[in-house]
Amino acid sequence: MEHSFIAWAKQRVSKLSQPEVGIGDDAAVLRASNRSRVVTTDSLCEGSHFLLAECGPRAVGRKLAGVNLSDLAAMAATPTDMFVSACLTKLAKKAKSSGDDDLSPSRIAVEIFEGIVEYAEKYGVSISGGDTNLWDGPLVVSMTVIGEAPEGGCWLRSGAKPGDHVVVTGELGGSILGRHLNVEPRIELANLLRQEFNVHAATDISDGLGVDLLSLFTASRCGAEIELGKIPISDAARKLAVSSGRLAVDHALGDGEDFELLLAIPESEMQRLPPELADVRLTSIGRFVSRTGLWQRDGGKVRQLAPKGYVHGTSS
Amino acid sequence: MEHSFIAWAKQRVSKLSQPEVGIGDDAAVLRASNRSRVVTTDSLCEGSHFLLAECGPRAVGRKLAGVNLSDLAAMAATPTDMFVSACLTKLAKKAKSSGDDDLSPSRIAVEIFEGIVEYAEKYGVSISGGDTNLWDGPLVVSMTVIGEAPEGGCWLRSGAKPGDHVVVTGELGGSILGRHLNVEPRIELANLLRQEFNVHAATDISDGLGVDLLSLFTASRCGAEIELGKIPISDAARKLAVSSGRLAVDHALGDGEDFELLLAIPESEMQRLPPELADVRLTSIGRFVSRTGLWQRDGGKVRQLAPKGYVHGTSS
Repeated sequence: MEHSFIAWAKQRVSKLSQPEVGIGDDAAVLRASNRSRVVTTDSLCEGSHFLLAECGPRAVGRKLAGVNLSDLAAMAATPTDMFVSACLTKLAKKAKSSGDDDLSPSRIAVEIFEGIVEYAEKYGVSISGGDTNLWDGPLVVSMTVIGEAPEGGCWLRSGAKPGDHVVVTGELGGSILGRHLNVEPRIELANLLRQEFNVHAATDISDGLGVDLLSLFTASRCGAEIELGKIPISDAARKLAVSSGRLAVDHALGDGEDFELLLAIPESEMQRLPPELADVRLTSIGRFVSRTGLWQRDGGKVRQLAPKGYVHGTSS
Repeated sequence: MEHSFIAWAKQRVSKLSQPEVGIGDDAAVLRASNRSRVVTTDSLCEGSHFLLAECGPRAVGRKLAGVNLSDLAAMAATPTDMFVSACLTKLAKKAKSSGDDDLSPSRIAVEIFEGIVEYAEKYGVSISGGDTNLWDGPLVVSMTVIGEAPEGGCWLRSGAKPGDHVVVTGELGGSILGRHLNVEPRIELANLLRQEFNVHAATDISDGLGVDLLSLFTASRCGAEIELGKIPISDAARKLAVSSGRLAVDHALGDGEDFELLLAIPESEMQRLPPELADVRLTSIGRFVSRTGLWQRDGGKVRQLAPKGYVHGTSS
């Protein structure tokens, strides 16, 4: 299968931007650049990150591209090249999402690729190489994305300072209802912010707001104090709360796969930050503080908060 | 598991060469360089590329590093950074190779990593990032290696000219008897050749001499004529021939995973090419020819040869 797929893929990417040497040799060659290169890699496994029979292979390709691009957005980098690896089940599968058609391994490979091409076109990225394998296991896809650092350097997790605002983009929680398959990496927003504002630190929200905030302030050797009432809650989180019996804010704090940005922005910059940028809401939900740990402020009271959510009984 | 593993891995690589930003942020940052970057990616799947219970996880890490580095050797590139992704089975496994110890997912991750570290140390490469996942399926590991192009540019598959010698490194065939788990990527040899000799084209032998030769001369829009008697046959191929009932030369031509280099070298350069370089044998097995297709010369006769081997009855 691999040789005919490579020939097809090479043709398919010919309208995208091109590296010096792309698909079809032992390795790709990327043109020299005087910028630092930024590199991330992420895999998705059938049954853990997606249900192939429910979502279809094209959505797998979209999610793979989206989650990887989101990591580069969190560095304020500009993606240039994608590399894709797919381990495909030998046997054809039934696809619920596209009638009752059987999906052969090569059909699955093509559909995954088409999902990736959608993101490559949207963000002006080359698909520069990859690898396909047939095996007996379920579907696994991996991607490495390479980008260029912005002028002045990348955002890191380690730069937050006590007093900085804890800022989140968009609305959080309930991504399992669909948004986790339609990731909107905040590339454009990050580039605008990087050019116009002094952002001290950033990460993307992949494991959940609480857990990712913990990662960020731990890397910055400080803590954070947030107000639960300020967290922007998505409609999906509210909808999910009805069936889960948990609070919507709990989903916004604890659910993963939002792929929004979490930023540390100094007070002076907050004054001139608009409420929206590139059509994405920017919300301050609290402050980084010198005391380590995650805290919630509720009126005059401050209490410790579990990063994974489950805020029942602690919010009053 | 991921957070404690990342902390351990970050510590473990601290003695290796370091990128500008390594393990632990959303992405790695590689220092700016005025050279073109060379990038390859390859995955290995349990049951297809290795039998975990037979070889143990450290050998999986070694093989993953070896096969990826081999692709950069085929471009005459110098590897600088490795990125690793592992999808680990949730349940602990029995390891035959290390007594009857149960291998937990985190133990498997550590052992794979240690195998990769062996190659990183040997070839002076950073382990700059990665991703781990737990799932219900068998083990899948992926790697992306980034390197720098040599001065004057990479070797490609497309540069062979009629009249060039078909040169192979080392000895071929029978890698399934063990060498496929102990890949020796020809990085040093490739760098020496690139500096001192004019090589027109190159690839590594991963699918088998016949198939990879076909890829190379197809990319170069020519053909090749080889003498079966000149193919350097490994001891493993001779040993395997005893049990397989096939000819040893058939294994040398058709077996995959040799990870030797296949080179197109012009006649003028062959005159001064030593029989060995960096302790690796260099053998001319024929010539590239303007007539497309794969041919064998036997005395005065020339016949078509099947790339996948099975030369019985055609060699006399």
